[in-house]
Amino acid sequence: MISRVTSRELAAHTGRTVTVAGWVHRVRALGNLTFVIIRDRHGLIQAVAEGRNGDLDAIANESVVLITGEVAREERAPSGAELRLQDFRVIAPADPALPFELNKKDLNTGLDLLLDHRVLSLRHPKTHAVFTVQAELLAAFRDFLRGREFTEVCTPKIVASGTEGGSELFPVRYFERQAYLAQSPQFYKQMMVGAGYERVFEVGHVYRAEEHNTSRHINEFTSLDLEMGFIDSEEDVMDLEVELLTEVFRRVAERCPSELELLEAQAPVAAAPPRLPLAEVQSILAKEYGKESPPEGLDPEGERLICEHVARSGGGEMVFVTRWPVAKRPVYTHPEPADPTLTRSFDLLFRGLEITTGGQRIHLYDQLVRNMVAFGLNPAAFENYLEVFRFGMPPHGGLAIGLERLTARLLGLNNLREASLFPRDRTRLTP
Amino acid sequence: MISRVTSRELAAHTGRTVTVAGWVHRVRALGNLTFVIIRDRHGLIQAVAEGRNGDLDAIANESVVLITGEVAREERAPSGAELRLQDFRVIAPADPALPFELNKKDLNTGLDLLLDHRVLSLRHPKTHAVFTVQAELLAAFRDFLRGREFTEVCTPKIVASGTEGGSELFPVRYFERQAYLAQSPQFYKQMMVGAGYERVFEVGHVYRAEEHNTSRHINEFTSLDLEMGFIDSEEDVMDLEVELLTEVFRRVAERCPSELELLEAQAPVAAAPPRLPLAEVQSILAKEYGKESPPEGLDPEGERLICEHVARSGGGEMVFVTRWPVAKRPVYTHPEPADPTLTRSFDLLFRGLEITTGGQRIHLYDQLVRNMVAFGLNPAAFENYLEVFRFGMPPHGGLAIGLERLTARLLGLNNLREASLFPRDRTRLTP
Repeated sequence: MISRVTSRELAAHTGRTVTVAGWVHRVRALGNLTFVIIRDRHGLIQAVAEGRNGDLDAIANESVVLITGEVAREERAPSGAELRLQDFRVIAPADPALPFELNKKDLNTGLDLLLDHRVLSLRHPKTHAVFTVQAELLAAFRDFLRGREFTEVCTPKIVASGTEGGSELFPVRYFERQAYLAQSPQFYKQMMVGAGYERVFEVGHVYRAEEHNTSRHINEFTSLDLEMGFIDSEEDVMDLEVELLTEVFRRVAERCPSELELLEAQAPVAAAPPRLPLAEVQSILAKEYGKESPPEGLDPEGERLICEHVARSGGGEMVFVTRWPVAKRPVYTHPEPADPTLTRSFDLLFRGLEITTGGQRIHLYDQLVRNMVAFGLNPAAFENYLEVFRFGMPPHGGLAIGLERLTARLLGLNNLREASLFPRDRTRLTP
Repeated sequence: MISRVTSRELAAHTGRTVTVAGWVHRVRALGNLTFVIIRDRHGLIQAVAEGRNGDLDAIANESVVLITGEVAREERAPSGAELRLQDFRVIAPADPALPFELNKKDLNTGLDLLLDHRVLSLRHPKTHAVFTVQAELLAAFRDFLRGREFTEVCTPKIVASGTEGGSELFPVRYFERQAYLAQSPQFYKQMMVGAGYERVFEVGHVYRAEEHNTSRHINEFTSLDLEMGFIDSEEDVMDLEVELLTEVFRRVAERCPSELELLEAQAPVAAAPPRLPLAEVQSILAKEYGKESPPEGLDPEGERLICEHVARSGGGEMVFVTRWPVAKRPVYTHPEPADPTLTRSFDLLFRGLEITTGGQRIHLYDQLVRNMVAFGLNPAAFENYLEVFRFGMPPHGGLAIGLERLTARLLGLNNLREASLFPRDRTRLTP
């Protein structure tokens, strides 16, 4: 490895001569000094040279350099220390014609241009911070579940047919046959519960060929999925999600304080979100806001308003919407025995946006087959899925959290594309 | 949650009345006693009832049951304790017509039948153990890299064109356009190094539309990818892989001792694998085994023999094959300055099978563009990839480990399909 210290380690080397490495963020002459600011994976480093220096002035921003010098304490420098430049070397020069400036406080450029040049916009400290936080969300999700004896699984994304019906599927030519990209790992995670693992999770891509091109949709996203057996009802799944998110937010607050500060974001304080049946949510919206909801549903404005209402009433920044009608949920959703027009299912809304769908699933073979028929589906088409129910399936349920939605709501990003490294949408296939 | 204790916790509840839950593995009358063995996510539990019991006898194997009873120490029972049965309840009955028996020591059935009924074959303790180990491999890979300040990334699997050339791609219909499934995250992980993260890893699916249908190939697999900047040469990448695998194997040995024992597998002892140039490997094969290798390459027999040779010479169970010819490596591979017909690349062979490909990559824009032209490629087609090189890319390299290959070699599985939960191959698209 190239011997160097990072911005995070710099201050600890005060008094010693070290080499640092990174991208040139800015070169600036000030009186009799030349300041070179470089960026590495953790942050900024200031190096200072005496006098004007034509070679330094000539380095294009974004070039990769090594700088050697003595480390001195300097409270005003980004790492609490600076380098008294003795030597430098350009190891990869950059084209000076950058499509936008990277060394300003914000990237004041349209999102499309930023995404077109994603490798550059990602270098901006604020964009960089988004995906540092996202990586911590992923790690915290997995660590929490492993601590609860969940087993991680990798299930196929090339499937013979869709999970939730035949629409919104991307077709794949699989040798001589037609296949599809998986819309969710739903069937597989249930099958893995019944295959004896009882508690499983998967972090993987899912695909939705939705035609609409909004700030709330991307066509390939990362789904944080879990499924567990031996539950009493969907309440157990909501209980688990509360504990999970409490831990995930605690971890991010603990390990990414500087990223949250830079993004002016705050992890929500732990509070058990209220659990409101959809019908009750609709009547709150009607009463408090004169808002009419679509039949048996909520629209985006309704999601925002109910979150606002709950927050104003001291209920926190999240709310479970429960008891969705049978007609609005997939065929495998467990009906509510006390009112079979409703299901044991829920959405979790966070700061105005749905980030989770979950619930209890039907576990008895006969009931599931009957429900398929009632839904106008042919059980024979689900033979592989049904097998696990034929041979002993415990009561179970689970949920899926959209990683990009969780990231966006946590960090106050307005468009899901800002929470995806290389988003895929209705028109975007590159970079 | 249904209140129950698992097989792992059972012995700690000696003297108390508890409920256990799981799948009926076997019911057996012995003299005046009836034994019911159930399986939960951790192992087997024995319950014993006095006298013959028609209701117990009538339960089909694989039914999901709850059994309540008092826990008694019993050294010969699978969990070191057994349950004196007081009550039981079938919560999901199983069809008695199982396609194969699950309660024998081994699943003595052809692989195709086992895969056709994967949710059932996964219930067998030996198959179950394979994927418990695989989940630990995944966790250990990530934990090691996070400890080395690698950032996890999620990059797209729907791409506009192939990474390694145009062949062996699965086409996807992406709305009005043609797209493909990613053969590897190669370009994206390099782009993320250059986007300022310096060290990144990804665990994700990759797709190869290879026509051959062998025990060494599946068409969708899980790739453990990493890429890092500021390296001196490919030797740094090999150094990292040795430390990584040492830690991964240590973790599996520590956390999955019963699974390894059940599978009669051993994690390899830590040993720095020798690093042999391909030309030297070929001459060893010729000299020691009279084996002729394909020009500039190794065939599967050669991979087996060189591993055998290294093991016999006390070199351990792994070997790096280095210095592959330019013609055998992708366009982005860094040439060896001392001999530009060769590259700074390597494969890692483990117990006779290649499990890793890696190397240093070209990081200078002009050199990469020239190499594309020399390879007969049109640089304009790689505009998005090339951008990061145009704006400052550090020296870098990385590797990819095939998760199924690593799992199979570690556990002594002969067919990669045994190391994939739901394999996709030339003919298999289900379950």
